[in-house]
Amino acid sequence: MAREPKQDRSRATRRRLLEATIDCLAESGWAATTVSVVAERAGVSRGATQHHFPTREDLITASLEFMFDSRIERVRTEPFDVPEGVGRTEAVVERIVDQCTGNMFKAALQVWTAAAADPALREMLLPLEEKFGRVSHAVAVEQLGADDTDPVVHRTVQATLDLARGLGLADVLTDDSARRREIVRHWAAQLDEVLRESSSRRTQAGPAR
Amino acid sequence: MAREPKQDRSRATRRRLLEATIDCLAESGWAATTVSVVAERAGVSRGATQHHFPTREDLITASLEFMFDSRIERVRTEPFDVPEGVGRTEAVVERIVDQCTGNMFKAALQVWTAAAADPALREMLLPLEEKFGRVSHAVAVEQLGADDTDPVVHRTVQATLDLARGLGLADVLTDDSARRREIVRHWAAQLDEVLRESSSRRTQAGPAR
Repeated sequence: MAREPKQDRSRATRRRLLEATIDCLAESGWAATTVSVVAERAGVSRGATQHHFPTREDLITASLEFMFDSRIERVRTEPFDVPEGVGRTEAVVERIVDQCTGNMFKAALQVWTAAAADPALREMLLPLEEKFGRVSHAVAVEQLGADDTDPVVHRTVQATLDLARGLGLADVLTDDSARRREIVRHWAAQLDEVLRESSSRRTQAGPAR
Repeated sequence: MAREPKQDRSRATRRRLLEATIDCLAESGWAATTVSVVAERAGVSRGATQHHFPTREDLITASLEFMFDSRIERVRTEPFDVPEGVGRTEAVVERIVDQCTGNMFKAALQVWTAAAADPALREMLLPLEEKFGRVSHAVAVEQLGADDTDPVVHRTVQATLDLARGLGLADVLTDDSARRREIVRHWAAQLDEVLRESSSRRTQAGPAR
């Protein structure tokens, strides 16, 4: 039942190329991310690279899917074990905001911005973005232990995801981490109040049947 | 004391080129915004364009300054006459968010994203961004009639500006206006509560001497 080593090697090479594409997008930008630059960065020969990704479009498309899958996988599977209360709310907000400040977000920003002026790329991106938005919202609701059927809670969680994107954008040109920490702490306190009010509304209304 | 018509014409041409640069950035993206594309879009001859902006760098630099000055001028001078209360708070939030959804924001996004991978451009951009952030914050505080020395108010206004950027980013790939309206209304209600609490803390503490 063991996998063939050759297949493993091929998969590892593919993954190395995709990771190099993301780093290259984040650090060198959209235009500079060419097949040959990525191949050199990944330490993979031109021939092997072309075997996996014959064109730049193939490489970019695959790296987009890889980027979204990795983001979703991370959101879904990172262990999260924080006691309930405002500390937990703050930890959830911090995680959401952290997702918007790494290389993955910076690479995504390069792709979004290119897509703003490229309708074909935009069409490809939209379903991926929609799926990512849906999963992020669901995971946030679950980790917060929130009642998403409460419209106030629903909007506040949405606003948290929007805020995180805005904080990510503010971090692109300069290290905004000190200010960001203050905003995260402040926002978590606000969000926690919304959650507590929602929970007390539920309790007053009696247990669900 | 009348201005010379020739000087007027030259100024109008310059402005036309700068406006065409912003539209071109927003619609066609960073790489496609070249001197010749902008000249054609503005209906200005190559010769006249090169007289104003000998290189692409000159054109981009000038359009950045023009973009920031226009954004600040709009923020500062747009008439704003809304009665106090939650309606006013909502109107202020709406204005802040509107600034992040037009062509000016989309052009700025192209420049930010290019600057993420271009240290020289980033150095040029940072003081402009810092000034814009400062002015936006001050105008928001003034229009809200808020007490910015209250740390809760200060952070909430900052978070409002961050949220606006995040909502702007969500609008780049798709028309997000319906969802955005809900978020704006919801956020304004939260912000208004923060302002009322701050104001009642001030009243309890007695009048300032």
